[in-house]
Amino acid sequence: MSVTAPRGFRAAGVAAGLKPSGNRDVAVVINDGPSRAAAGVFTRNRVKAAPVLWSEQVLKGGRVRAVVLNAGNANACTGAPGFQDTHATAERAAAALDDSAAEIAVCSTGLIGERLPMPELLAGVDAVIAEAARDGGLAAADAIRTTDTVAKIAFKRGEGYTIGGMAKGAGMLAPSLATMLSVITTDADLTAEQCDRLLRRATSVTFDRIDSDGCLSTNDTVLLLANAASGVVPDEAEFARLLTEVCDDLARQLIADAEGASKSIAIEVVGAASEDDAVTVARAIARNNLFKCAIYGEDPNWGRVLAAVGTTDAAFEPDQLNVAINGVWICRGGAVGDDRAKVDLKPRDVTVTVDLSAGSSAATVWTTDLTVEYVHENSAYTT
Amino acid sequence: MSVTAPRGFRAAGVAAGLKPSGNRDVAVVINDGPSRAAAGVFTRNRVKAAPVLWSEQVLKGGRVRAVVLNAGNANACTGAPGFQDTHATAERAAAALDDSAAEIAVCSTGLIGERLPMPELLAGVDAVIAEAARDGGLAAADAIRTTDTVAKIAFKRGEGYTIGGMAKGAGMLAPSLATMLSVITTDADLTAEQCDRLLRRATSVTFDRIDSDGCLSTNDTVLLLANAASGVVPDEAEFARLLTEVCDDLARQLIADAEGASKSIAIEVVGAASEDDAVTVARAIARNNLFKCAIYGEDPNWGRVLAAVGTTDAAFEPDQLNVAINGVWICRGGAVGDDRAKVDLKPRDVTVTVDLSAGSSAATVWTTDLTVEYVHENSAYTT
Repeated sequence: MSVTAPRGFRAAGVAAGLKPSGNRDVAVVINDGPSRAAAGVFTRNRVKAAPVLWSEQVLKGGRVRAVVLNAGNANACTGAPGFQDTHATAERAAAALDDSAAEIAVCSTGLIGERLPMPELLAGVDAVIAEAARDGGLAAADAIRTTDTVAKIAFKRGEGYTIGGMAKGAGMLAPSLATMLSVITTDADLTAEQCDRLLRRATSVTFDRIDSDGCLSTNDTVLLLANAASGVVPDEAEFARLLTEVCDDLARQLIADAEGASKSIAIEVVGAASEDDAVTVARAIARNNLFKCAIYGEDPNWGRVLAAVGTTDAAFEPDQLNVAINGVWICRGGAVGDDRAKVDLKPRDVTVTVDLSAGSSAATVWTTDLTVEYVHENSAYTT
Repeated sequence: MSVTAPRGFRAAGVAAGLKPSGNRDVAVVINDGPSRAAAGVFTRNRVKAAPVLWSEQVLKGGRVRAVVLNAGNANACTGAPGFQDTHATAERAAAALDDSAAEIAVCSTGLIGERLPMPELLAGVDAVIAEAARDGGLAAADAIRTTDTVAKIAFKRGEGYTIGGMAKGAGMLAPSLATMLSVITTDADLTAEQCDRLLRRATSVTFDRIDSDGCLSTNDTVLLLANAASGVVPDEAEFARLLTEVCDDLARQLIADAEGASKSIAIEVVGAASEDDAVTVARAIARNNLFKCAIYGEDPNWGRVLAAVGTTDAAFEPDQLNVAINGVWICRGGAVGDDRAKVDLKPRDVTVTVDLSAGSSAATVWTTDLTVEYVHENSAYTT
């Protein structure tokens, strides 16, 4: 399933020798048409990996025949030679598909600052395209994992069409546009312009609202491929809703599997003067290391929540702030509220609700706690 | 020494029962004149503790007779009753000194969201003023410690006058103006206007440039008291230099003793188009958890440095960035540079140099690594 749930898509994942573990590390998603409408959203980081620079150019054409993805090496901070490596990857896939490299998107994830082992990768491109099949969606999702402990897939059925998706991402989850790598496919009939508009809208309230560690990757890419194989021109509102559900499903899977996390934390901000204010406040809390350590320690430390809220320029009065943790309003009017002993922080899922008492807008950002395991995992990543 | 190094100041620190440990927790710094010129810089957090709100009003008058400080309880997020507690503290000190509460500054540090134990604190105010003496500077510096492992003091002698200071702060070090609590005294003859201007200038390049964990406290306060007891009107340039040296000395002590840190990291940004750009880039690196974990793991991960630089709007071209760690230029032109194996990350002091190749401005921000001990200490703070 996953990216091969919709008709007219093939996929595969193979082991090409990029991961020291010997696990699958090269994937492909092939669009067999008839349409090739596509859109992409990319990292806002100004230090962009070579495959991001390449794929941004491909997507300007609004058409994608196939996406080649690799894990184990991000091909980031590799200069002009790294860009040539991405170009060669696209050319190799184009040759195997007898198509144009200008319609081959490329995504990479893994270590930064190291050149790709090109002989292995190019042999992998040949192998993965030869293997690509209707039942290859799960193998593709498996191949793009780095420190992900599970493959992430999702799909939804609309009126006569299907949307499928896969994603990877375990650290450095703080998208400004997208998060890590995700490919979403549909057999609905959409224009490239529709793909772009619908994908931006869906990612803005899903992938854009997860933030595991405040770190913005050099490689974040989300692609939407629509091939019209169903012959169905979808109701745009319905499609938008289903696409958002697929993105939301994948985004939650990313947070649930974030590196070293022991808690999945929803930060709901309500009573905001605007949705922007709500997102700003939620993100400030999501990035506060002291708050994240407190949740790891199962300590309902609302003072650290207020200290984070106070760093923003959102509309609020300090003495009108209310904070609930898992439904217990332990801070009322900027001061002590209900008994903190009533807060049960044992479950993995934690909800922090902040009422700004400044309006009627709301937004939720999903984050994780800051744990000993996170520090361990990220202090030994390249060594 | 410390705040009592200059003539005409008395200080003391006593144990009043605010800290569960029974250690000293109430301090006073008394200015015996003849002048009472003073200035303060305070946290930019909009959620300000009661003593910050109080002391901001006191400092508007430009005169301070005494500063009362307590550790163990921050009196933050305590609403109107908390403000009344601060007011009562100032009144008690004023009564003991036969002076006006409007010239008594108050500083608190410790747990957020709990009321002060006022009977103990007020008895402590009486005791600490009774004990205040010329040799009490070290006891005062000791009393304001929370998780600080050592007391922080500094002093410098100018032409006929002296500047002394004390500070505390171990977590939540990310000042936007000041950091945690610090009182600086001098027997030079300065106007309140001079105190304000000189203090703002000195803190902007010292306390403002340390950032241990990106978290901005509700209580940060730095006060400068000048009593003219030396009779010397200082050369302003010399005084500015010495005051900056005292602030820099104290700021470095704060970073060296930051909660759970195993490395003190200087992030030098050079080749910037402006000093603001340099500070922005340095701070983005200082707040990147993945970079901070890498340094903890003694991994010279320059890719994470570039990923952090890329999140800023500073002037630079990604392919012209150079990065050195402890003097080894492991990233040149945005790509791999010298051999990373040459980088020795064993020493506690680490220097990361980023050359933006965009101009001739520079700035340094001091930070720490992100460690297992930081997570432990901050996940069990209130429990």
